Amino acid sequence: MTLAEPVNTDLTTEAGLEAEMLEVGRRARAAAATLAMAPTAAKDKALLAAAQAIRDSTAAILEANAADVADATAKGQRASLVDRLILTPDRLEDVAAGLETIAALPDPIGSVLAEWTRPNGLKFERRRTPLGVIGIIFESRPNVTADAGGLCLKSGNAAILRGGSESFRSSTAIVDCLHQGLHATGLPEDAIQAVPTRDRAAVGHMLRMPDFIDVIVPRGGKSLIERVQTEARMPVFAHLEGLCHVYVDAGADPEKAVAIAVNAKMRRTSVCGAAETLLIDRAIAPTLLPRIASALQDAGCTLRGDDAARAVYQDMQVATDADWTTEYLDAILSIAVVDGVPGAIDHINRNGSHHTDSIVTENADAAERFLNEVDSAIVLHNASTQYADGAEFGMGAEIGISTGRMHARGPVGTEQLTSFKYVVRGTGQTRP
Amino acid sequence: MTLAEPVNTDLTTEAGLEAEMLEVGRRARAAAATLAMAPTAAKDKALLAAAQAIRDSTAAILEANAADVADATAKGQRASLVDRLILTPDRLEDVAAGLETIAALPDPIGSVLAEWTRPNGLKFERRRTPLGVIGIIFESRPNVTADAGGLCLKSGNAAILRGGSESFRSSTAIVDCLHQGLHATGLPEDAIQAVPTRDRAAVGHMLRMPDFIDVIVPRGGKSLIERVQTEARMPVFAHLEGLCHVYVDAGADPEKAVAIAVNAKMRRTSVCGAAETLLIDRAIAPTLLPRIASALQDAGCTLRGDDAARAVYQDMQVATDADWTTEYLDAILSIAVVDGVPGAIDHINRNGSHHTDSIVTENADAAERFLNEVDSAIVLHNASTQYADGAEFGMGAEIGISTGRMHARGPVGTEQLTSFKYVVRGTGQTRP
Repeated sequence: MTLAEPVNTDLTTEAGLEAEMLEVGRRARAAAATLAMAPTAAKDKALLAAAQAIRDSTAAILEANAADVADATAKGQRASLVDRLILTPDRLEDVAAGLETIAALPDPIGSVLAEWTRPNGLKFERRRTPLGVIGIIFESRPNVTADAGGLCLKSGNAAILRGGSESFRSSTAIVDCLHQGLHATGLPEDAIQAVPTRDRAAVGHMLRMPDFIDVIVPRGGKSLIERVQTEARMPVFAHLEGLCHVYVDAGADPEKAVAIAVNAKMRRTSVCGAAETLLIDRAIAPTLLPRIASALQDAGCTLRGDDAARAVYQDMQVATDADWTTEYLDAILSIAVVDGVPGAIDHINRNGSHHTDSIVTENADAAERFLNEVDSAIVLHNASTQYADGAEFGMGAEIGISTGRMHARGPVGTEQLTSFKYVVRGTGQTRP
Repeated sequence: MTLAEPVNTDLTTEAGLEAEMLEVGRRARAAAATLAMAPTAAKDKALLAAAQAIRDSTAAILEANAADVADATAKGQRASLVDRLILTPDRLEDVAAGLETIAALPDPIGSVLAEWTRPNGLKFERRRTPLGVIGIIFESRPNVTADAGGLCLKSGNAAILRGGSESFRSSTAIVDCLHQGLHATGLPEDAIQAVPTRDRAAVGHMLRMPDFIDVIVPRGGKSLIERVQTEARMPVFAHLEGLCHVYVDAGADPEKAVAIAVNAKMRRTSVCGAAETLLIDRAIAPTLLPRIASALQDAGCTLRGDDAARAVYQDMQVATDADWTTEYLDAILSIAVVDGVPGAIDHINRNGSHHTDSIVTENADAAERFLNEVDSAIVLHNASTQYADGAEFGMGAEIGISTGRMHARGPVGTEQLTSFKYVVRGTGQTRP
């Protein structure tokens, strides 16, 4: 497999960029057909070879990353963006190990999901297949380049990766390593392509290529997701924000309530599974809220409460309506008093993002009602919302957490990146 | 449950129509929340009561239908459209029996798709849930009103039905019966709503209501499907045309080849699973094609062949390139000679609609390669493509055959109209 020659286009013109993106799509489509039939051993060998290439190229990747970081710093980018952008030898080792983890996962492709025989003798089989070409649009986190490319490869899909423009050099260096892995195995390098320009207009072209991209996975801020959902001409695995709730029921064990509330908010505040709102049952608020609130403050959390919450614990800011729909991703928590399980369900279904919500209670009936009626991808009983993570589910790795109800819901790992087909075997049957 | 008052709007104005459609959406969303929690017994009782209401209202439905048919005839509509539109006592009995069949199906909601426990003691469960609100846009076939409404109800979803304008009175009369069934059980009548106008502009409004419609299922001609795929702001279960193929391999049993080719084309020519193209292996064409071709002609089929086909059997029309991508839905078949299984796979993946394709062969290796590499929702070995039907799969009933790869592929029955959620049970776990 030789590297295809780049199209002779000027990417600074609109027409040139469009032609180049269509060419990227055509190559991805061709690679996907090969990849769909690739044996497990070839895919795994490519993943292991890519991991080794990343280790062997550490110096070159870190050099590319240093240039990205210098540019981002010079442009005055936010500290949190620069922090996500920075690669270190340790972070790069995690990237390589992540590819090895993906190689060790079972291959979803070809597995039989169901089989049955009809009275007329026809044997039916529902068999996993790849989706085809997956377009992934993500923020400036170079490690996502390897995770997303690796998950697509393992699940037999071609990937078109469009990372944040600030990480362009770092992502390109990592994609080079993925190509070395593919090359070493005889798989098409076009199976994993990075968009060859920093130009944000490339995103618009991706969204208008339904013939070449079967599904778009957007990761990033609210405005990106909304733009993708509005403009995309193909299905979207939406990753909305994580407006996660912990509801402390009157039947809660106080120790568990304190531990889960503090962990759900403060273990890591920047992850999508971090709690943003604490709901507490009116019946227990006077006795339990002060204890939970002071534990959160001891852990460094700022609190914003509604009137009823502030009536039983005065040392908190005033929550406004906007607080119920704000993903802080910071050490801030909004607190509302609700009327039992029905009040909690109503608050969550009205204000949440259908991501991850937890109830703390020893009352089995209350727990079942909450688990049934809260309309979220992940609902938990007596456990922290921070378990919203593909690895914690046992999926090995994930591209993100889908908040949509279509196709993939919750953590998106290799199985969620597949479709299926019906294979029907007969002995000459014709339909009467 | 009382009937909600209609919004006081003038549906002949654009603003009035939009307000009315948004109100339909709001009611559907509210009904969906109730329906998602409805017990199986209540849903089944509503379906059985609706079936009885249809039997009891036969005279009124046939009267409404006669008015629809008279209008369509006066307007000079095609005979095939008028034929689909006509209801008879027998067809109406089939509609009622269809609702009883749906009632007898297992309830997909709440069933556990997978469960596992992690080393930290967290118990995971993946549990079926409804999708929410399903919008269905279909041709002027009044029976689809009951099938689609019934399937959505059984799977816990609210339905917004938009049938062809020619069947407006018939559909409205059938929806009245569905409402009687819902009413008799205390379920919200808004669970099944028909768009309250014939105005085609209503379709455009449906496609722009992602807050109120979770998925759109378009059924109908190519132009409708393409419009929906372009304009819809929500996911689409695409039902493209059925460009189905029968490939007769060199290893075919001649008897099976003749029987399957004739059945796949001629059993019913108007269904999406009818074959439109016959592919035959170059190695066997001289001996087998004349036999298949004359059997098809004896059954009343017109043949259009490529040069190689006409070289071995001259009594057929000349096929042009357009024939390979034409869904005739008529007693016409295009015939191409291909070079073995690879040639057949290439022809099908290039020209087909990823619907249903069959290989006839006694060669197991050839069959496996075809079943693996043909990228269609349904692939068959030694069986007629006319088995592409939810009932033949054992699903009981279907809204249609999805040719997309996302979420639902192949026959769309009750299970395909569901999503899922993760239910996680702990004993106070916090994430380290």
